[in-house]
Amino acid sequence: MKTTIMIDALNRLIGKENVLYTLEDRLCYAYDGSKQKHIPDVVLRPRSTQHVSNILQYANEQEIPVYPRGAGSGLTGGSVPAQGGIVMDFTHMNRILEIIPEDLTATVEPGVITQTLQNEAAKYKLFYPPDPASAAFSTIGGNVAECSGGITGLKYGVTRDYILSLEVVLADGSIIHTGRKTLKSVTGYDLTRLFVGSEGTLGIFTQITVKLIPLPEKIETLLVFFATPQDAVQSATQIISNNILPRALEFIDKSSIDCIKGYKQEIQIPEEVNAILLIDIDGKDANVKTEVSLIEKIVVENHALKAIPAKDVKERDTLWEVRRAISPALYTIAPFKINEDICVPRSRILEILSRIANINKRYPSLKVANFGHIGDGNIHINILHEEGDQQRILAENMIEEILRNTVELGGTISGEHGIGNVKSRYLSFEVPPQELQIMKDIKHLLDPKGILNPGKIFL
Amino acid sequence: MKTTIMIDALNRLIGKENVLYTLEDRLCYAYDGSKQKHIPDVVLRPRSTQHVSNILQYANEQEIPVYPRGAGSGLTGGSVPAQGGIVMDFTHMNRILEIIPEDLTATVEPGVITQTLQNEAAKYKLFYPPDPASAAFSTIGGNVAECSGGITGLKYGVTRDYILSLEVVLADGSIIHTGRKTLKSVTGYDLTRLFVGSEGTLGIFTQITVKLIPLPEKIETLLVFFATPQDAVQSATQIISNNILPRALEFIDKSSIDCIKGYKQEIQIPEEVNAILLIDIDGKDANVKTEVSLIEKIVVENHALKAIPAKDVKERDTLWEVRRAISPALYTIAPFKINEDICVPRSRILEILSRIANINKRYPSLKVANFGHIGDGNIHINILHEEGDQQRILAENMIEEILRNTVELGGTISGEHGIGNVKSRYLSFEVPPQELQIMKDIKHLLDPKGILNPGKIFL
Repeated sequence: MKTTIMIDALNRLIGKENVLYTLEDRLCYAYDGSKQKHIPDVVLRPRSTQHVSNILQYANEQEIPVYPRGAGSGLTGGSVPAQGGIVMDFTHMNRILEIIPEDLTATVEPGVITQTLQNEAAKYKLFYPPDPASAAFSTIGGNVAECSGGITGLKYGVTRDYILSLEVVLADGSIIHTGRKTLKSVTGYDLTRLFVGSEGTLGIFTQITVKLIPLPEKIETLLVFFATPQDAVQSATQIISNNILPRALEFIDKSSIDCIKGYKQEIQIPEEVNAILLIDIDGKDANVKTEVSLIEKIVVENHALKAIPAKDVKERDTLWEVRRAISPALYTIAPFKINEDICVPRSRILEILSRIANINKRYPSLKVANFGHIGDGNIHINILHEEGDQQRILAENMIEEILRNTVELGGTISGEHGIGNVKSRYLSFEVPPQELQIMKDIKHLLDPKGILNPGKIFL
Repeated sequence: MKTTIMIDALNRLIGKENVLYTLEDRLCYAYDGSKQKHIPDVVLRPRSTQHVSNILQYANEQEIPVYPRGAGSGLTGGSVPAQGGIVMDFTHMNRILEIIPEDLTATVEPGVITQTLQNEAAKYKLFYPPDPASAAFSTIGGNVAECSGGITGLKYGVTRDYILSLEVVLADGSIIHTGRKTLKSVTGYDLTRLFVGSEGTLGIFTQITVKLIPLPEKIETLLVFFATPQDAVQSATQIISNNILPRALEFIDKSSIDCIKGYKQEIQIPEEVNAILLIDIDGKDANVKTEVSLIEKIVVENHALKAIPAKDVKERDTLWEVRRAISPALYTIAPFKINEDICVPRSRILEILSRIANINKRYPSLKVANFGHIGDGNIHINILHEEGDQQRILAENMIEEILRNTVELGGTISGEHGIGNVKSRYLSFEVPPQELQIMKDIKHLLDPKGILNPGKIFL
């Protein structure tokens, strides 16, 4: 089919002001956080559920691939138009439709920025807990599609735990509603959670109702230096076994520390520091005090070199700068980085870190930096490499070994970034053939022509 | 097929000590909490995943219906052998396979009693929060099949929020594993939650890994008397808008109060009391004190007639006796009771209670008593009626009206009891045809011959 005919048809369906087709425009939608480049044939910016339905009905008839896109901040290629076709950009569907404090719910369009929802909820002293690192720019629609996690996972769970109901447009353009806007509902199969984490391959969300909880009164932060990763991991374990669930419990390894030392550093990190824990405690005022004191006691017992507390927002921000600096700082080691996203049962963290170090010995030209959400076992492994195919292939081989070891230890190859087209070749390491076939059968059931985000999740 | 041939085959497959076929034995498995009677052809008591697999492979070949059964305490007929065939009783698969405090997980067989898991977890100062009223005798397998809720739903969520991974035997006898034993995992579609709440119609669980959380240090209880339901509901709303999520927030209406007055009563309920709230607050010691004080202030501001606190386990038990007495006490009003399980957004509670009262006016021979989990909008409506078809039909007509009104207010026809064969005729009130068709298609995909719990959920 000629592109011009398609553009004409789409102009008629959703209005030409919502159709972008110049090369300059299309280039802006060829990327996401995974740094691939696939130029779509056209970019559509629907303004309503009906627009989305019109587009899908047409695309399904014409068998044109459709890729829903929030902010394009995903790290596994979820929104990349891998096989050309239509990118559906949700920039214009970004309204918070309602926040009902009495019901502890909010209903939003998919293009709402995660942090915008958090901020609006906070005005009612309410809290939307899922907090991916991208919260300041990623969208709720994307978060639901990927089942995003983030730093609050240990205490508050992940996106799936907060989704009550969805309006979904199916591949053929029909509009369905899953779940109810109630805190409990068990009427038939849980279609809501079938769509959560389905990475845009089963249907496209047009309205999302989330559960909110009371906003914690207070947050305090501790940055703790250790001489060994063992001391840091042991401290994390003891904090939890002392009945404390921190809002955040972040681990930073030696390589990551080395990187940030040369980088913006209001906080001085002494030479002997080989591991850091960054801990947020939230809750009622009295409680936070008690828990922070107990944590200080625990880390001292585990040979902490120093614990730096922050009492106000500005001090907290300074401590968190240490964590936030890592990702950009890693590029001072090498120009290329592959960011992995494994999650293991917490009891296996030292084992997986030790296995990664051993694997690294066989790839001496690559550098590895690990940091992440140690509270829930979700470690971000960064493989840093130089330019060139040879280095890239080495890095990919190393990742393959790490992922196989992760699965061997009962872990998962993706804690929170999803599979997309970046990890689809590894999916079979973890998901056996029959389970994969069930997923593919469900995909075929809901999208028989395979127009929704083709090339994602499955090979 | 002759029953004797089937019995011989099953004896060979799982050992004759695990096969019950006398009428006396089979009669014990003809019932559940919904008081239907359907006698199965045979009762099997598997001792391993392999047994379950052997049975299903055989049943699928022979097209014999199979009904998984935990304690048979479900209220919507989930475990009743509605079309004859095999009841699969999980009495022998009741082992807690592991509790790993460091990982905050437990892996259990489906026949474990919910309270047994709660008690074992408590030995490690850990907590499995879902707490259906049946926890002392219902099984985890049944809880997962129905996605049970209970009194802790507002603060802690429901069963689905605690299931990390499942071992499932499919209709054809094949054994699959869903999810991972990690706190995060996003690898493909969420098959785990597709099975949670599927009421035994998609597969049979043989191992269940649950997430645990730290055990709250302390629980305090308040029983509060009000002159009007408005005051009680208003208090509940203000408690939540003051950033308190009680562990339990139970509502008891005038009819229920009248019943328990003549029943075991250590607590004297004055004549002018027309509504009661029963409130549990849990957490750290200091916190519980603060929240209880704030709640006492709120209920006084909302014209509470009296607030009775309980400081220890024995006193708590006395207060909770008031709530526990309702169900049996209702039979003092009429010999028959239909227990409904609606859930509405909390802001619609007064509206639904008022509509129920109005509907009741058109059914003067029926008495209605309402109580339940007001915190999450989940109200148990009890329609009390005399013997006889005419009374039963009136009660059913009244229920139909209540359910239609519930859906109209954005509520759900089942908060936590499931659909089974008791509510399947009402499912279409809430779930539109296309969503129902998707569910049926998924059912057909996983159980093409329809042997798993036939007659449940769908008409």
